[in-house]
Amino acid sequence: MSLHAVLLAGGSGTRFWPLSRAQKPKQFLQLVTGNTLLAETYARVRALAPPARSWVVCGRAHVDGVREALPDLPGAHLIVEPAARNTAPAIGLSAVHALRADRDAVLLVLPSDHHVAHPERFREALEKAARIAQQGDLVTLGIRPTRPETGYGYLRRGVEREPGVFAVEAFVEKPDARTAERYLADGRHSWNAGIFVLRADALIEALRRHLPAVHEGLQQIAADMGRADEVFPRLPSISIDYGVMEPESKATRRIALVAADDLGWSDVGSFATLPEVRELDAQGNAVSGDALTIDCADCVVLADAGRLVAVVGMKGACVIDGGDALLVVPRDRAQDVRAVVDALKARGRGDKL
Amino acid sequence: MSLHAVLLAGGSGTRFWPLSRAQKPKQFLQLVTGNTLLAETYARVRALAPPARSWVVCGRAHVDGVREALPDLPGAHLIVEPAARNTAPAIGLSAVHALRADRDAVLLVLPSDHHVAHPERFREALEKAARIAQQGDLVTLGIRPTRPETGYGYLRRGVEREPGVFAVEAFVEKPDARTAERYLADGRHSWNAGIFVLRADALIEALRRHLPAVHEGLQQIAADMGRADEVFPRLPSISIDYGVMEPESKATRRIALVAADDLGWSDVGSFATLPEVRELDAQGNAVSGDALTIDCADCVVLADAGRLVAVVGMKGACVIDGGDALLVVPRDRAQDVRAVVDALKARGRGDKL
Repeated sequence: MSLHAVLLAGGSGTRFWPLSRAQKPKQFLQLVTGNTLLAETYARVRALAPPARSWVVCGRAHVDGVREALPDLPGAHLIVEPAARNTAPAIGLSAVHALRADRDAVLLVLPSDHHVAHPERFREALEKAARIAQQGDLVTLGIRPTRPETGYGYLRRGVEREPGVFAVEAFVEKPDARTAERYLADGRHSWNAGIFVLRADALIEALRRHLPAVHEGLQQIAADMGRADEVFPRLPSISIDYGVMEPESKATRRIALVAADDLGWSDVGSFATLPEVRELDAQGNAVSGDALTIDCADCVVLADAGRLVAVVGMKGACVIDGGDALLVVPRDRAQDVRAVVDALKARGRGDKL
Repeated sequence: MSLHAVLLAGGSGTRFWPLSRAQKPKQFLQLVTGNTLLAETYARVRALAPPARSWVVCGRAHVDGVREALPDLPGAHLIVEPAARNTAPAIGLSAVHALRADRDAVLLVLPSDHHVAHPERFREALEKAARIAQQGDLVTLGIRPTRPETGYGYLRRGVEREPGVFAVEAFVEKPDARTAERYLADGRHSWNAGIFVLRADALIEALRRHLPAVHEGLQQIAADMGRADEVFPRLPSISIDYGVMEPESKATRRIALVAADDLGWSDVGSFATLPEVRELDAQGNAVSGDALTIDCADCVVLADAGRLVAVVGMKGACVIDGGDALLVVPRDRAQDVRAVVDALKARGRGDKL
């Protein structure tokens, strides 16, 4: 098998402000270890896909960040999206690149801003998925839910084709709390982590069937790479889940789900989730840098900006030093960081965004 | 009358860390307005005691701070304590200085780190006290309690000698909560704000009676100012309350209390008290500098260090940016800032003290 890693590094977001900025989104942050999430992702699959078979897709603004995080990535393997068009065009573009290098490329499509506590099991699941994908199926990893999470999409499993490999009955949007409880209880639902394993040529073929405009554009780019800047921005903006996987599952049923259990997977969704993925002190605080916590519990204190951060008597608070900006928010309000970013935009404070 | 202001600026303390440091104690902080508490105190009594009749007592480490805060204070009116010996020797030393300039000096002895919301009433109380002091009594201002405060000493009032002027029956130490409730209810107790009005020669005479060692040392210094560095550090360390006022009240009863009501006086005891003395936003937050509060109430957010401080969803929290160090603490734990200072000392972090 000829496994190629495709790391999707085009994401932006606001949930890690003030650490994340327009120029430095989450994948470039050292949120769990001393390495960026992007570098951790790259290293995690290195045993399956060495640098010569690794690809990173990102926007122009983040080219330097990727080069810095992944110094041994071959220059030609950094694929710049001329515009953000969501995952179907981005993965399609990477398939075009991989096919030029390797007609048998099997792509391991990976978000670059997740954490996996047990990388060995993760690689086993990817290898299993790759064996299925080798035969032409489009494969998605299904993560066993551990809580009634309302922040993720779900995959509803159909018939078990072989042990741990299922048909996909439906791609399900983020549920409400009651539905999420039901999904957790019924044992038929997996978290959709946005991890796909597919033969590059099978993906191109699926794009031809379901997203002909994307397919057509990619063919033009494949024929003349110089046209990417002109063609790519005109492609429809659509995710691979809804643009390819879901219609393909209804049309051909050549969509498979490989059950991935006990990976210790996390999408590292906000500061509030850091205690789940980082080492904690005896009081359950996730602390880094020049931090001093006294009588604190369940706090997140990130003091990596060269300044002392002292926190006294707080429970469940996040205190985040981003250098020129600082954030204090209760853990159960960590999603509301977006309100800060919105307020800064409204006030013309681009210097802090 | 020849009124002289004596500002006691020798205090140090830890309750405003990280704004206050060893080199910059509370009186040098702009805690209530854009001016330091010291400069506010100086300006507050200027109508009674202009710069030519103002004196500031401080330690050697704070000479530059005083000069910066009070540029028009005559150089010879900055009295340096060769060592910290508490208030009786410090005020005695200022009396020696004032007497050399003015044999009729009446001293308005003022802590330099308090706030007064109604300075006009404050000056009226001081003038009334000065008229009593003119006759040789040692006078203390008694502040009407507005809550059962356990952090202050109290003055128990005796007979009313004239309207609003009382004998002092006792100087009372900081009470427990039940006793403080009783003091508040019985109407016979005033807060001891450490504000004294006394003729300089009457103070020297009282020192002779009650603290002969202090008196003797001050006489040596008066005879030869060059000996201050040698003599002053050997004086006993004792407060004017317990060294002079209390024994004098028992011996001669020439101690008077002038009732000072509704001054809006505050000792600005900790970050928690700032909402009582500063302007608040509609949610009761005391905010300064580049602060952004979203859905916060009753918070203190001081962001005057040139960095954005964003606080989301917090109730009753203090977030204090001291430049190279930051503090987050609940308002009802603001006294525990001392624990941070202790921890920093224990860890050899003199750079932050």
